[in-house]
Amino acid sequence: MKRVQIVEVGPRDGLQNEDHLVPIEDKLRFIQLLTDAGFKRIEATSFVHPKWVPQMADAKDLYPQIPKLDGVIYSALVPNVRGMETAIEVGVQEIAVFTSVSETFNQKNINMSIDESLQVIESVIELAKQENIPTRGYLSTCFGCPYEGHIDEVIVAELTAKLIDLGCFEVSVSDTIGVATPGDVDRVLKAVLSQSNVEQVALHFHDTRGTALANIMQALNYDIAVFDSSAGGAGGCPFAPGAAGNVASEDLIYLFDGMGIETGISLEKLKEASLFLESVLEKTLTSRVLHSPESPLKS
Amino acid sequence: MKRVQIVEVGPRDGLQNEDHLVPIEDKLRFIQLLTDAGFKRIEATSFVHPKWVPQMADAKDLYPQIPKLDGVIYSALVPNVRGMETAIEVGVQEIAVFTSVSETFNQKNINMSIDESLQVIESVIELAKQENIPTRGYLSTCFGCPYEGHIDEVIVAELTAKLIDLGCFEVSVSDTIGVATPGDVDRVLKAVLSQSNVEQVALHFHDTRGTALANIMQALNYDIAVFDSSAGGAGGCPFAPGAAGNVASEDLIYLFDGMGIETGISLEKLKEASLFLESVLEKTLTSRVLHSPESPLKS
Repeated sequence: MKRVQIVEVGPRDGLQNEDHLVPIEDKLRFIQLLTDAGFKRIEATSFVHPKWVPQMADAKDLYPQIPKLDGVIYSALVPNVRGMETAIEVGVQEIAVFTSVSETFNQKNINMSIDESLQVIESVIELAKQENIPTRGYLSTCFGCPYEGHIDEVIVAELTAKLIDLGCFEVSVSDTIGVATPGDVDRVLKAVLSQSNVEQVALHFHDTRGTALANIMQALNYDIAVFDSSAGGAGGCPFAPGAAGNVASEDLIYLFDGMGIETGISLEKLKEASLFLESVLEKTLTSRVLHSPESPLKS
Repeated sequence: MKRVQIVEVGPRDGLQNEDHLVPIEDKLRFIQLLTDAGFKRIEATSFVHPKWVPQMADAKDLYPQIPKLDGVIYSALVPNVRGMETAIEVGVQEIAVFTSVSETFNQKNINMSIDESLQVIESVIELAKQENIPTRGYLSTCFGCPYEGHIDEVIVAELTAKLIDLGCFEVSVSDTIGVATPGDVDRVLKAVLSQSNVEQVALHFHDTRGTALANIMQALNYDIAVFDSSAGGAGGCPFAPGAAGNVASEDLIYLFDGMGIETGISLEKLKEASLFLESVLEKTLTSRVLHSPESPLKS
């Protein structure tokens, strides 16, 4: 592997569970700093009902104000047709849809069965296609569910293929609660890649148990080349008790830099974005690289 | 890889930089809990001058009181002939000697050149051999030095071979400041294994930048089967500014459990040892697994 894509999900997945409501100007500044750091794919917000995710209530105002750099995609999560209509209204460049491989998690997360959510996704993608808006898919709890425990990898493979079949250009196979080890990555990727092309598969690890980088190492053996992360390791999940944030973008980029794998992202500039986010949230984020001294190997 | 050995270094490497002087009875309890968890190799203390490491001033009193379980090796770090004489006096089962691949680090750490420290090691091992005490070697800053930066892997390979030649049954190639990535592991292990047998090489990662588990994943590709860790991720290094503790034993065992690699250690019992250590030190340790909810995959 010579080059990977990193999808920075901090402005959406990183912020959505923060009680501290971040002012729109701070979100715009955060997205600007991430753009400056070199990310080419940034998940900027979510067109979800404010009742469910108060942090994203400003999505319609925020999105048009993002200073968009040519060559950078600013995407947004869309849970339903209503959200999609708003997304179209404000000119969203790319959307993401989501469902889970666990019926229980899906019920708790979005109050729908998996089949019902697939029907919603189909309607959303139909609208997206009319506007030539590409759709990414998220598949939650692929490595374990807080309610159902073990998840059969065959179901992960089938639903990944289903989302691609419905029109997703890529599916982010997600470890929502950060429970996976490289053994699970083996098991799940073998199943998923038996039904889908590797170019259409991304991975999304939360780092609850510190295994995210080890999992990503394992995924490189399968030629997976797209990984989600969040600046500073921000995030969590209200429907996944105890889940920590996404793997920290800093830690991931430090890993790839050391392995000679190109990301196109400046670690130093990324740290500025994360330190800014810390100052806004008034909390210390979990990234280890963010709070470690500069590597003496650089001198 | 079906089975690995974990060398638990918490009572020595984990504690040596703690300002909070741990009472001897708490150390004994900690070692007992680690034994109960199933570790077969525990580095229990260090026969170093109390002026340099006040935390280890009780080594001579502590060692004989350790309730030793058959089949478990309780080792001790020995910096010089004087320490070795004391170690023999109290009946130490196994010792560890140490030097660094960096002249500057060695000077700051033990006020000797590398050559001078090798002469000391030779004298210590001579005494150890007379008593049939096995000697392990530590080689510090193998993946980068806080003062010299990049370290040539050829020097790591030569000094590893030299320590084995002097009589060490195993050398723990150490990332003292937690700077390595899997790319460095490749580079260093290729060099080291061109001169030494894999059975004589262990790895010792600090987790300053969150890459320790990824590094260990890479090392498994080279059939390395002995890894150092500390309960809870305790530790640091006074001569390595900003260095965090060892990779947490919990995180390592969670990784291996998930990969079906046997360690012989009970994660639940290990957590008891780490929670006890937290209560003694009155601080939160850095292990992610220690503070995450029990995995739903177990149910």
